[in-house]
Amino acid sequence: MGLLKQTFDRIKPLDSTAMAQAKERQDRLTKPQGSLGRLEELSIRLAGIQGKSIPEIKHKAIIVMAGDHGVVAEKVGNWPQEVTAQMVGNFLAGGAGINVLARQAGARVIVVDMGVAAKLEPNPKLLARKVAPGTGNIALGPAMTEEQAIQALETGIKLVNDEMKNGLDIVGTGDMGIGNTTPSSAICAVMTGRPAAQVTGRGTGITDEQLAHKIAVIQRALDVNRPDSKQPLGVLAKVGGFEIGGLAGVILGAAANHVAVVIDGFISGAAALIAVGLEPTVREYLISAHVSAESGHRVLLQHLELKPLLDLEMRLGEGTGAALGMILSEAAARILGEMATFGEAGVSEESGK
Amino acid sequence: MGLLKQTFDRIKPLDSTAMAQAKERQDRLTKPQGSLGRLEELSIRLAGIQGKSIPEIKHKAIIVMAGDHGVVAEKVGNWPQEVTAQMVGNFLAGGAGINVLARQAGARVIVVDMGVAAKLEPNPKLLARKVAPGTGNIALGPAMTEEQAIQALETGIKLVNDEMKNGLDIVGTGDMGIGNTTPSSAICAVMTGRPAAQVTGRGTGITDEQLAHKIAVIQRALDVNRPDSKQPLGVLAKVGGFEIGGLAGVILGAAANHVAVVIDGFISGAAALIAVGLEPTVREYLISAHVSAESGHRVLLQHLELKPLLDLEMRLGEGTGAALGMILSEAAARILGEMATFGEAGVSEESGK
Repeated sequence: MGLLKQTFDRIKPLDSTAMAQAKERQDRLTKPQGSLGRLEELSIRLAGIQGKSIPEIKHKAIIVMAGDHGVVAEKVGNWPQEVTAQMVGNFLAGGAGINVLARQAGARVIVVDMGVAAKLEPNPKLLARKVAPGTGNIALGPAMTEEQAIQALETGIKLVNDEMKNGLDIVGTGDMGIGNTTPSSAICAVMTGRPAAQVTGRGTGITDEQLAHKIAVIQRALDVNRPDSKQPLGVLAKVGGFEIGGLAGVILGAAANHVAVVIDGFISGAAALIAVGLEPTVREYLISAHVSAESGHRVLLQHLELKPLLDLEMRLGEGTGAALGMILSEAAARILGEMATFGEAGVSEESGK
Repeated sequence: MGLLKQTFDRIKPLDSTAMAQAKERQDRLTKPQGSLGRLEELSIRLAGIQGKSIPEIKHKAIIVMAGDHGVVAEKVGNWPQEVTAQMVGNFLAGGAGINVLARQAGARVIVVDMGVAAKLEPNPKLLARKVAPGTGNIALGPAMTEEQAIQALETGIKLVNDEMKNGLDIVGTGDMGIGNTTPSSAICAVMTGRPAAQVTGRGTGITDEQLAHKIAVIQRALDVNRPDSKQPLGVLAKVGGFEIGGLAGVILGAAANHVAVVIDGFISGAAALIAVGLEPTVREYLISAHVSAESGHRVLLQHLELKPLLDLEMRLGEGTGAALGMILSEAAARILGEMATFGEAGVSEESGK
């Protein structure tokens, strides 16, 4: 608990001086003011996050955390649990969607076993941080103990703290865990106060009948565990997941280190709900990469007051949306840092200026 | 006219065999089918455009065409005409928004003087293709002769034909021309059949009173010139611009060479209306990068039945949106080409498959 409390203390509001300087520079660049729209806003927020009037996005990482979920016993989806471990192998071999998009973004991929329900072979590229081999079945009881929830959070924080020495200007969150839209919907229902049916989607693709069953399972998880939105740590322990807790820790750790966090889709969003519940200032450090095709995601983003950069009907997870959001964040920072000002370029300004 | 006609003949529908093969591969990649949403659709379309089951986006160019507009005499905006030439200098020096974003996208920037109303100093990086030093004032008469319209189109076509030897997998369109939202709105009104008021926006930023004046000027241009949507060449000549004609040529030339075209904002969209009007098959080769903050752009994209990839409230032009759309197109192609299949990665598939 020491690291967690200490991390909350390190999380500060954005640097308003750096933001004012960034805005002032943005308005002197050779373009009509505001004509780069949301890229301009984003560049100013990046300045506030990094505490630099000209933010830099050079060192980039996507942290992909994997975990399994006891609730798969309730048959909430169509994919076998073994796929979680198999996909970890795919990440390590470089063949998954996130590997491809991270390569394009120039981001390193950090693969973490937070709680895969299989013994994974040691691999120099795999961070073995297993809290336990899969969570408990949330339809019957808690996902994990509060101690395990703290361990998951602190694992994420420590990971970011350690990564700082390799250089880290921006981090993206990614997840892998068969069944993990179910705990994510449960977290989303609790933290936003919406009914389960409104925040539950088809995950990787299920029928209407299966969807009704999934909603009933989530409702049972809420009835059995009685999570309370005012106790985010308890919410994580009762209806969460190890990779979700780890990603919430990554978010907290990034904010504590003045590193921007690009959040991916619905599972990363559930992690953000936990992180913001624990320390509301964290919200200012979040960049929403995209709105996922998973139905609860829009509700979640509205609750966090985040406007997604992209809407490409993606729903893969792994950090694939985050990789694209990172590219757009880099574009925003480059515009601010690399464009010439009117004075530098000898270009006339609008009349009346 | 020879090159133009010859180019129409070279424009073929997309390769349906390559598209079917791309779809088949896309469905074997290690992810739930369809979970990369619009990136999957885009990868399949790129396969059809390039006629390759695995499309490649390696050689990239943004073609930025500059031209001036006689209609600025009507005071349709607040920026002095000299800015067109000054911004060409900024493009050549590498300090403009498009230079920054093209560098990130790994695209070369090709700067073309199609009709700047100033004598530009020779520069090895500048393609001097001036049709005339600015168009006529469309509020009083035609922008150019039909011969000049053909010259503008053929200049764009020839440029793409010549660029093929340097390698070209995708091309982005960019524009620079003080006053060029006015002819673009006029073209948009004619080609979509909408009233001028519905397709006229604030350009680089004008007041309500100025907007009413701008709409009146566009209406006058339509009344004086009587352009007919069934005669797209006549529309270009009567109410167009040299950079708009050049970009329409780039679009035609790209389609003829099986090169995907990422269209930028409103001015590039007006060029696309002309190109598609001349040869409707061209539409299949177009990728809409973004919907601009300029109000007519949404109407224009609906008319072309194109769904933009991004909505970031951008309205700079220069190809800045196209550069971002190119990055997303590359992501789509990389996913299809670089991701492992279930078989290759040894990952189990969904039950029932």
